[in-house]
Amino acid sequence: MKMTTFKGLAMLGYDNIGWIEKEVPEVGPYDALCKPLAISPCTSDVHTVWEGALGDRHDLILGHEASAEVVEVGSYVKDFKPGDKVIVPAITPDWQSVEAQMGYSQHSGGMLNGWKFSNVKDGVFGDVFHVNEADGNLAHLPKGIDICDAAMLSDMVPTGFHGANLAEVEYGDTVVVVGIGPVGLMAVAGSVLRGAGRVFAVGSRPKCQEVAKYYGATDLINYRDGNIVDQILDATGGKFVDKVILAGGDVDTFDEAVKMVRRGGIVSNINYLGTGDYIRIPRVEWGLGMGHICVIGGLMPGGRKNMEYLAELLVRGRLDVSPLLTHKFDKFEDIEPALVMMKSKAADLIKPIVKL
Amino acid sequence: MKMTTFKGLAMLGYDNIGWIEKEVPEVGPYDALCKPLAISPCTSDVHTVWEGALGDRHDLILGHEASAEVVEVGSYVKDFKPGDKVIVPAITPDWQSVEAQMGYSQHSGGMLNGWKFSNVKDGVFGDVFHVNEADGNLAHLPKGIDICDAAMLSDMVPTGFHGANLAEVEYGDTVVVVGIGPVGLMAVAGSVLRGAGRVFAVGSRPKCQEVAKYYGATDLINYRDGNIVDQILDATGGKFVDKVILAGGDVDTFDEAVKMVRRGGIVSNINYLGTGDYIRIPRVEWGLGMGHICVIGGLMPGGRKNMEYLAELLVRGRLDVSPLLTHKFDKFEDIEPALVMMKSKAADLIKPIVKL
Amino acid sequence: MKMTTFKGLAMLGYDNIGWIEKEVPEVGPYDALCKPLAISPCTSDVHTVWEGALGDRHDLILGHEASAEVVEVGSYVKDFKPGDKVIVPAITPDWQSVEAQMGYSQHSGGMLNGWKFSNVKDGVFGDVFHVNEADGNLAHLPKGIDICDAAMLSDMVPTGFHGANLAEVEYGDTVVVVGIGPVGLMAVAGSVLRGAGRVFAVGSRPKCQEVAKYYGATDLINYRDGNIVDQILDATGGKFVDKVILAGGDVDTFDEAVKMVRRGGIVSNINYLGTGDYIRIPRVEWGLGMGHICVIGGLMPGGRKNMEYLAELLVRGRLDVSPLLTHKFDKFEDIEPALVMMKSKAADLIKPIVKL
Amino acid sequence: MKMTTFKGLAMLGYDNIGWIEKEVPEVGPYDALCKPLAISPCTSDVHTVWEGALGDRHDLILGHEASAEVVEVGSYVKDFKPGDKVIVPAITPDWQSVEAQMGYSQHSGGMLNGWKFSNVKDGVFGDVFHVNEADGNLAHLPKGIDICDAAMLSDMVPTGFHGANLAEVEYGDTVVVVGIGPVGLMAVAGSVLRGAGRVFAVGSRPKCQEVAKYYGATDLINYRDGNIVDQILDATGGKFVDKVILAGGDVDTFDEAVKMVRRGGIVSNINYLGTGDYIRIPRVEWGLGMGHICVIGGLMPGGRKNMEYLAELLVRGRLDVSPLLTHKFDKFEDIEPALVMMKSKAADLIKPIVKL
Repeated sequence: MKMTTFKGLAMLGYDNIGWIEKEVPEVGPYDALCKPLAISPCTSDVHTVWEGALGDRHDLILGHEASAEVVEVGSYVKDFKPGDKVIVPAITPDWQSVEAQMGYSQHSGGMLNGWKFSNVKDGVFGDVFHVNEADGNLAHLPKGIDICDAAMLSDMVPTGFHGANLAEVEYGDTVVVVGIGPVGLMAVAGSVLRGAGRVFAVGSRPKCQEVAKYYGATDLINYRDGNIVDQILDATGGKFVDKVILAGGDVDTFDEAVKMVRRGGIVSNINYLGTGDYIRIPRVEWGLGMGHICVIGGLMPGGRKNMEYLAELLVRGRLDVSPLLTHKFDKFEDIEPALVMMKSKAADLIKPIVKL
Repeated sequence: MKMTTFKGLAMLGYDNIGWIEKEVPEVGPYDALCKPLAISPCTSDVHTVWEGALGDRHDLILGHEASAEVVEVGSYVKDFKPGDKVIVPAITPDWQSVEAQMGYSQHSGGMLNGWKFSNVKDGVFGDVFHVNEADGNLAHLPKGIDICDAAMLSDMVPTGFHGANLAEVEYGDTVVVVGIGPVGLMAVAGSVLRGAGRVFAVGSRPKCQEVAKYYGATDLINYRDGNIVDQILDATGGKFVDKVILAGGDVDTFDEAVKMVRRGGIVSNINYLGTGDYIRIPRVEWGLGMGHICVIGGLMPGGRKNMEYLAELLVRGRLDVSPLLTHKFDKFEDIEPALVMMKSKAADLIKPIVKL
Repeated sequence: MKMTTFKGLAMLGYDNIGWIEKEVPEVGPYDALCKPLAISPCTSDVHTVWEGALGDRHDLILGHEASAEVVEVGSYVKDFKPGDKVIVPAITPDWQSVEAQMGYSQHSGGMLNGWKFSNVKDGVFGDVFHVNEADGNLAHLPKGIDICDAAMLSDMVPTGFHGANLAEVEYGDTVVVVGIGPVGLMAVAGSVLRGAGRVFAVGSRPKCQEVAKYYGATDLINYRDGNIVDQILDATGGKFVDKVILAGGDVDTFDEAVKMVRRGGIVSNINYLGTGDYIRIPRVEWGLGMGHICVIGGLMPGGRKNMEYLAELLVRGRLDVSPLLTHKFDKFEDIEPALVMMKSKAADLIKPIVKL
Repeated sequence: MKMTTFKGLAMLGYDNIGWIEKEVPEVGPYDALCKPLAISPCTSDVHTVWEGALGDRHDLILGHEASAEVVEVGSYVKDFKPGDKVIVPAITPDWQSVEAQMGYSQHSGGMLNGWKFSNVKDGVFGDVFHVNEADGNLAHLPKGIDICDAAMLSDMVPTGFHGANLAEVEYGDTVVVVGIGPVGLMAVAGSVLRGAGRVFAVGSRPKCQEVAKYYGATDLINYRDGNIVDQILDATGGKFVDKVILAGGDVDTFDEAVKMVRRGGIVSNINYLGTGDYIRIPRVEWGLGMGHICVIGGLMPGGRKNMEYLAELLVRGRLDVSPLLTHKFDKFEDIEPALVMMKSKAADLIKPIVKL
């Protein structure tokens, strides 16, 4: 008998989470219904609930990081069928949109609107969840990839690697990664996998520093030890770095970033900026407007292609995401303490994962 | 008999210009000595003298826009000889520098250091002037190009066109050009020559508006008629524009630019930013850091290749710079009133030119 | 009462065209049914019928160049409704495909498979025709664009302009366009609109030469006057050209193209190559494999975005396609003599158009 | 007392090598004189002498792979002084040239003309050798890099990595490298360092296969086991690969390359093509001219920047070139047997190196 309702962990309102029951969503002709295999809470979920990042949402099921199994598909879906194990990107664009045709599928239909799970519709922390345009937005889980590792492909890997892509990291580049939570760590790994030479990782937590080293950081910088620009330019002998990837900090961190990057360099932001009216770029160091320092930031690209190609890095042993998974759970209900853990951020936490 | 001293119009000190005599500079093995054929003052010269843009310089001969004739060449110069008529770029990089090898020759040896004339050495408002690395920095004046038109290739054309290049204008793009002095006008022309569709030209002076239309602006926006973001988004029916080129305004204009550009769009600055601590980028409209709106600014590229290719546009009739040349003089001494005119900016002025 | 059958001009079999009646195709949830407003035959239709370019097809309605009116839309179509006037691209990709996500929508589902009309399904030479993924593949006809002009946006403009895009034409480039039928003429116009300087147009028909001049060709080269490489290098004084766009010729024309292009230059093909086992690249002139001469060819990109942006060039008066439309008809049945005319190629023919 | 003559191993004529004495070359104002610290023969030297690749040269000192010490510098050289230890690129462009300004410094002054050592002037197999434009063409040897490893930065690393750059390898790409001599091995390493997923290495020698695995090849293909296209498409289940890098084979290998690459893919050649009139591209698999398969080949870029950035990969432990150095010598005279060894290619040979 077909399920008509399902349960999920939701934002009930500002500062308030809880379990609710909802009707199973309708599956359109191109869509799919999936049930999660492994799920992980994201700092974005924390922002959503406790910082009101998306405004006051009610009864919105949370979560956008999951590997899953297909339960049902629409009549026009060609490449997936019930029972298929899949990777699910956090960003599931509308592929017909003009934005997608321009290469900005993450903004299909409006700023950041390719992001649907736990934003404009229920997320993946439910018994089931709905996926729009399944052929374009799911990827088959390759043999041999662990379902917990696969959940890191939803957001952590593509966001971190997008930072390295936006920064156009090239062979031998000196790269600074500010912020070494899971996304920053993937920016370190992504920089190394694009050929970076020296990589400065800026962060203070020992566990994160240890994992940053594992992923190829050559220099660890702790902002508690003083101004990071001074520390980094001291280390380089005053030479500007090629690229800066911001995976942490706030609107003021751009000031530091511009002050350490070379002419022709790039400051690439993948960090959600929750407060402040303005990002500020220092005029003089920005070459009085003429220094060719590019400042850009962007949401990760979603969709199937990106998942398939990033999964190849796991399949071929180029990237091991298991060091990110510091805390493991094995019951669906555990997603609640896992989310709370993400909020409280224990010293040794990188990512909690719930294997179902 | 070889000339040992020469005369030129110099910045004597802050807020003070006058004619001085100097020793003829030594010509290194790769260098050339030229005498100007046509010269034009630039707003940068005004900034230098009356706003102290480069700090307090003494007895520095001004000017970086000229066509010229070669007077002497170093022993290793291969492609030029005395008597050759040449185009002289405002920016004359050190071509061996690592920066030039990276594609940023304008920053060879340091931020903006490819700019030498009237900055780190005497400029072109002298009987003669020195050109470093002549084979790499001069271009032969093609037959049929007027020497006054050629002087527009030193700075006005390459700077305006660089704005369109940085903005990566594509077929059918809607482009806003803020500021329609001579550089902004060339940004309009350069946008059209990269395939722009609709082009908004933002400025208030009737003469400039008229010439903006000539170069292909489809819509004229006067900032005196209200907020330019509102005016432009009204005109587009609320649709964001593809690219914004800043050839005027100040550090605050970036706020407006980001508010009207689409996700995946580019804000390209070619305007000297003389004051203000920070360029400010509005956080929300910048997609909370994730909107893929690129903010970049840069000094024009110098050197021979750029001159040769831009000159082709004049040779083949793709671009007519004569509408820029609103005020003509014919004696060397006239460069002084011409410069003062650039400072006072008469209503119908775009560029004064002195033909020698 | 809803129409159940419709009439169209079809390829009945090899070397054989005729009118047939077919059932009106079903309109899927994302699709549309349209009726043509203006249609034009393409050389590809000629290849299909009389050269067997697509193999032996039976009862396939021909045509892929049309402007149209929407008759019916699927339940999930958001942006179009019956009665809307639209531009219809010749290439209508599957936007969810991995190929589209990689930027190669024209190859969605396989080599050239974004091309559906008169290839894998009935074309536009019918009372009605089916459009897949209407929101992604149709564009609203802007006010003031003539429906005949709009039909040139289906294939002629985007194919010619794609040639200039693949060739990465830049300010001042010297470009050779080989073949000046309608596509080649649009490659000339597209090169000029990307900033080309000198443009050599290679062709023999006086009418085409005249229109090539109109679109900005600076030099006309007739292959009947001798080897085109010699003619062109004579004209340049032996200097290699920057880019070559092949809109005519055959597999052997690449030999000539490589022989006249500079190191770092591009040979861009937009010409259907119907015969010959191999394209041949001359080893020595290709730098013994190391000359950085890029050889690339590609089918035009389809879809809505491309149509919208190219239409802007007509709306803003940057491009006038009316000189292409040398022969006009005004009855639906006239598409048959128009197609035969495309085959026989009268001296003064560029494109025939049927306005309905 | 200043040395006036020096000794070196030269091509005396076709098929004939020997030691000769020559006058020490004059050092121009921007130039340097160096003495080698470590030298390695290249397959190009073999081509030059025994295949007449550069025509019949007489008394030309061979060699273009070396680390060195500066002996003398011209009066305008700023960044180097006698006694400095340096990396020397095989390609030493004229940086003022228009070609260099366009990004193709390897072709400064004409096709492949950035290649000077053992081509247009004496090479590095002498007691001393001349370096043009020292500031632009030498790089300081970083501390901790072995002088033998450094010699691999002259040609092997930059050529192999240029293959990966031309192929625009991206995260997760499936790459085929044809030919796994030292350059092909560096193309494997360079592909992995740009984020390749699956990497097919095509070659037959067990030693090279072993080292290919070390550098990250996931699949070894031996052309002696059958057609490589069949073998590779069998392994992928018929899916085309993303990129093919040709570091071996001949003009016919392009046929195979095009047959296995996807639409939108790239065939990148870094292999010297010594014979055959034409590279042949199969028409049908090239999409009848419209498949967006880019075919490009290029000589490595030379100059200081490239050396500095590639050296960073050694400094930071991203790349270990020591597995290339299979045969070591320690006397200057040994360069002769080392060169002969390169010609005869022992089973276990990758590169011989002479440490002085």
